[in-house]
Amino acid sequence: MGSGTDAKRVAMSLSGGMDSTCLLLWWLSKGYRVDTATFFYGQRHEKEITSAEFISDFLGVSNTYIDLSTLQEVLTGSALTSVDIDVPEGHYEEESMKKTVVANRNAIFLNILAGYAISREIPIISYGAHAGDHAIYPDCRESFVMKMEDAINEGNYFKIEISSPFVGLHKGQVLERGLASCEILGVDPVKIFSHTWTCYKGEDEPCGKCGCCVERKEAFDFCNISDPLLKAV
Amino acid sequence: MGSGTDAKRVAMSLSGGMDSTCLLLWWLSKGYRVDTATFFYGQRHEKEITSAEFISDFLGVSNTYIDLSTLQEVLTGSALTSVDIDVPEGHYEEESMKKTVVANRNAIFLNILAGYAISREIPIISYGAHAGDHAIYPDCRESFVMKMEDAINEGNYFKIEISSPFVGLHKGQVLERGLASCEILGVDPVKIFSHTWTCYKGEDEPCGKCGCCVERKEAFDFCNISDPLLKAV
Repeated sequence: MGSGTDAKRVAMSLSGGMDSTCLLLWWLSKGYRVDTATFFYGQRHEKEITSAEFISDFLGVSNTYIDLSTLQEVLTGSALTSVDIDVPEGHYEEESMKKTVVANRNAIFLNILAGYAISREIPIISYGAHAGDHAIYPDCRESFVMKMEDAINEGNYFKIEISSPFVGLHKGQVLERGLASCEILGVDPVKIFSHTWTCYKGEDEPCGKCGCCVERKEAFDFCNISDPLLKAV
Repeated sequence: MGSGTDAKRVAMSLSGGMDSTCLLLWWLSKGYRVDTATFFYGQRHEKEITSAEFISDFLGVSNTYIDLSTLQEVLTGSALTSVDIDVPEGHYEEESMKKTVVANRNAIFLNILAGYAISREIPIISYGAHAGDHAIYPDCRESFVMKMEDAINEGNYFKIEISSPFVGLHKGQVLERGLASCEILGVDPVKIFSHTWTCYKGEDEPCGKCGCCVERKEAFDFCNISDPLLKAV
């Protein structure tokens, strides 16, 4: 894995959650050489980072850890980065989830990723945004991705494509793609998905109540399998 | 200084060079409350940072230091961040200056600045790009700024404006604006400009040969004054 010709290269952010893991599996199953980057920005769910390390090691992918903890004081006012703001419970698409928006976060990640790719002449950066994200996060919508691609290309000599192949899918369909890719690659999905971390709270076990936990459960139900993370804990 | 009503607020990057210093003076002279941020990304001309600290202190402006040294390994291949690549000599607008391009750098800074501004409901971020930059740096052109503003606004609830008031001016005209602002503010221009750092090489004295030094000299000649930095060293 992690092989392929130089023309078939892609760079992507690997958070350690389910969506980016499925995206990584998907690109690998298509024979792409994938460079991943894991961003730390002071998020509560730091546990994601251990997950990202396990997954990239397991799949033989080169992962760059990018410490942006300096941004913790810059991007204030989100429940994901501030202990003073409670992580909301309930469904992921509810209004209350807006408290988890981190100002311009995905744009910052995409732009750093673009700088990484342009420096190395990697023609694609990829983004795991999916339909379930759209309701709350404007920076997960296709219109945003298209405009950002256009802006980045206006500012650089080397041109890149921002590919977000899951943008029309719900989380269950994303998982479905991930499972199918595991089959193509001959990778044990239980090994992989017992190491993906989704819960926003970042405690020892998933809380089962935050929007992410609720949506993760729906995704596994959609695929008619049980969540190996819940078995594992 | 640094006062004004909350509606008149702007956030900008202060590199410690001449252009951003003129931009800061310009906004202050218009009665804006200005928040500045200084980025460290492993640039050779680290000396800029001491300059930025002096200038923000001197003008009573709140400056946030943002350490992005983690990006040094991410954004490779530029003479500004790599000691293996020589800083080219000659005129700033020549082809050889492309070696000083850092992939997607200004887009990354603008996006972090946007995150800062959005978190604090500051409606404007400002950018000191001017006409002399355009030849070499595509991310200093107005078309780039407009597309980036559009992309950022597509991705966030709070809308911002990216203002680049110097985009049509050459560096001499930028300095002219800076000097005029000093007069309005009652600030000694010699004190300010003897502390702005321009040279890319970051040695004890300006090299006088890199594109930035050549262009700085042209700017002071245009304004018919001598460069107080050269007197100071």
